[in-house]
Amino acid sequence: MMNFHYPNGKRYIPAKKEIIGRKKEKKWSYSNRGMTLEEDINETNEFYLERNIAVIHKKPTPVQIVQVNYPKRSAAVIKEAYFKQASTTDYNGVYKGKYIDFEAKETQNPTSFPLKNFHTHQIDHMDKILKQGGICFILIRFSLTEEIFLLEAIHLLTFWQRMKDGGRKSITKEEIETYGHHIPLGFHPRIDYIKKIDYLLNSNK
Amino acid sequence: MMNFHYPNGKRYIPAKKEIIGRKKEKKWSYSNRGMTLEEDINETNEFYLERNIAVIHKKPTPVQIVQVNYPKRSAAVIKEAYFKQASTTDYNGVYKGKYIDFEAKETQNPTSFPLKNFHTHQIDHMDKILKQGGICFILIRFSLTEEIFLLEAIHLLTFWQRMKDGGRKSITKEEIETYGHHIPLGFHPRIDYIKKIDYLLNSNK
Repeated sequence: MMNFHYPNGKRYIPAKKEIIGRKKEKKWSYSNRGMTLEEDINETNEFYLERNIAVIHKKPTPVQIVQVNYPKRSAAVIKEAYFKQASTTDYNGVYKGKYIDFEAKETQNPTSFPLKNFHTHQIDHMDKILKQGGICFILIRFSLTEEIFLLEAIHLLTFWQRMKDGGRKSITKEEIETYGHHIPLGFHPRIDYIKKIDYLLNSNK
Repeated sequence: MMNFHYPNGKRYIPAKKEIIGRKKEKKWSYSNRGMTLEEDINETNEFYLERNIAVIHKKPTPVQIVQVNYPKRSAAVIKEAYFKQASTTDYNGVYKGKYIDFEAKETQNPTSFPLKNFHTHQIDHMDKILKQGGICFILIRFSLTEEIFLLEAIHLLTFWQRMKDGGRKSITKEEIETYGHHIPLGFHPRIDYIKKIDYLLNSNK
């Protein structure tokens, strides 16, 4: 029963907060550190939040609710619901007044990042964010080597277009190294992506 | 199980406020137009999105997922889940590169707006957004008169503090008229709040 899968085959990982007080806490780990990319980003966002560095949150998982029961004397129970495809990215918020928007993905592939990790709605969303002057990027983790890169959405859109034009269906790791920015894994915060954003903002001045 | 439907045939998804707790009271109000505040705002956001005026979305309802079934040959079904209290506001996005964040509430009270419509987490969130230079406000609808006001979060925080200091537990309508900005109901878009934001941005220059 605990073997959750999204329709796209990915495991559903409940945030720790969600299950506290509800069930015995289960721990999913697929890195040596026992931390998922999502957990690392959540930890980083909490770090930013506590220090007033940035206010960035993960959006709730989009769910289509079909049936709700209302037991007397206790909370409403959702009895039937389905995962919906997200039409936006997972994370957004504000840094120095500016809009920040990103998606985080990891791959087991050591040499390239498959573009099937995104769907058209998300790409369209990123395009709209850029047109509106927002800061938009993806965080990519190569699981095997635990390397994390920040790739600005403008580059992702270019590689997406290459695929649409009949080109390769992935971004090579070399391309990510060339156009992206390596983020060394830290202790606290784990993935200090705002530092890169600062750098990019300053270099664009 | 209750089978709620909007007049337009769309499935009704109860707002969390209505579900959390034990009240059976149905709190939503159909106005003469048969549109809820949320529908009006969604319509407005779609209008902005289509015209590249702004990219603003409602966040998914936060849900704590407990049990999921994976039937063969069909989509995963959430069989047990609960509504969670939101720790942020419902709407956010980007307008001209700037971060936009707001919450929308309506009241049946003709003379004042009860502060119990918010919880501490949301107020703290708004405070953090302001400190980070984001644009934060609430949209208030007085259901009986169908009047809509935009009130900047800085004023909401002041009224919240007054309550904390032992003062009244609501904002009078007169105060909202004084500190807020009336938004006339339109046809398309229904609630043109970005126009007010533009005005506020320009008057703060």
